[in-house]
Amino acid sequence: MRRFVVVGHKAASSGNFKLEDMAGGAGRLDILIRCINSAFFLSHSIRKDAEIYLVMLGGEDAPKTVRIVGSEVKYLNPDERSTGALVRNALMMDVEDREMRSSPGIYVSRDSFYDVINRLSARSKIVYLRENGVDVQKAEFPEDVTFVLSDNQDLTSQEDDTLCSLNPAICSLGPYSYHADHCIIIINNELDRRGV
Amino acid sequence: MRRFVVVGHKAASSGNFKLEDMAGGAGRLDILIRCINSAFFLSHSIRKDAEIYLVMLGGEDAPKTVRIVGSEVKYLNPDERSTGALVRNALMMDVEDREMRSSPGIYVSRDSFYDVINRLSARSKIVYLRENGVDVQKAEFPEDVTFVLSDNQDLTSQEDDTLCSLNPAICSLGPYSYHADHCIIIINNELDRRGV
Repeated sequence: MRRFVVVGHKAASSGNFKLEDMAGGAGRLDILIRCINSAFFLSHSIRKDAEIYLVMLGGEDAPKTVRIVGSEVKYLNPDERSTGALVRNALMMDVEDREMRSSPGIYVSRDSFYDVINRLSARSKIVYLRENGVDVQKAEFPEDVTFVLSDNQDLTSQEDDTLCSLNPAICSLGPYSYHADHCIIIINNELDRRGV
Repeated sequence: MRRFVVVGHKAASSGNFKLEDMAGGAGRLDILIRCINSAFFLSHSIRKDAEIYLVMLGGEDAPKTVRIVGSEVKYLNPDERSTGALVRNALMMDVEDREMRSSPGIYVSRDSFYDVINRLSARSKIVYLRENGVDVQKAEFPEDVTFVLSDNQDLTSQEDDTLCSLNPAICSLGPYSYHADHCIIIINNELDRRGV
């Protein structure tokens, strides 16, 4: 299983945004939406071995986490607008303590970044993508691996501390810094080449 | 210079489409729009050494080619909607024989796929991305290289013949077939790693 956790520091945590304004009023939700495309789409199919956690930290209803499971997801198309509508449906749900299913393969909870990575670290190797890490092409990964990424802002020092306390692998993808959705594509290609 | 040529077999060649319908009525223009994002965006800057040609073959006004030049382009944001608006502005121009500038770094012409790759082949190495090609990580590229991609349809046999007549390098990106915009990200990462 390959997992991606993406932190949206200002991303809308409720569904009252316009699909025309995901890059503005919805707190750069567009970045997280593109990460969904990157995580799941092959040319003619959906990656069934992938899962993504989008941690929404913007707005008064934060935190919320939208989780998408490749082996279950339906109605997913590659364009930003229709994917944004699926995520908005999830954020419109009246979620309380327990994770709820919004549509096939799409779940929403009140989990924080801490909740998400702490739980995942019990069963998956956590990888922190950072400029000064080990080249991803030279790193070794177990079968169950979780890559942590951030939106257009770096992780806060508190998030960084939380993540580093889990003893993550630190990896980089090349000489430049890339958008989160581009990072996911590069990682997927690297894992594809290994036959993971 | 790294160049990308993307063929949109049904992509709108005139500007009378809605930004809400790029994946539908505009003939999968959404794919070409995402290719623009992939070609140009680094985390904190635009790639000045990149250029993309989008060949629009849908509708009665086809063919048209929208060319975007990284060293000149302005007003480019990563979301599909705002990039779609820039391309629509170009397709709304009353273009005749000569290429016209729509906004800084964005040009439109009546060039066909044949016109585009024939002209480029005089000064750039053409690379055809295909499943059975040489692994891109093992291929050698000159400084000026042009990668040819297609939208959700393969190149037609006529387009394939035209391209193959130019003696292209044939490369593949891994064990799976990817969307055109994902291919561009993988190629950009590979060239970044070489310091090209």
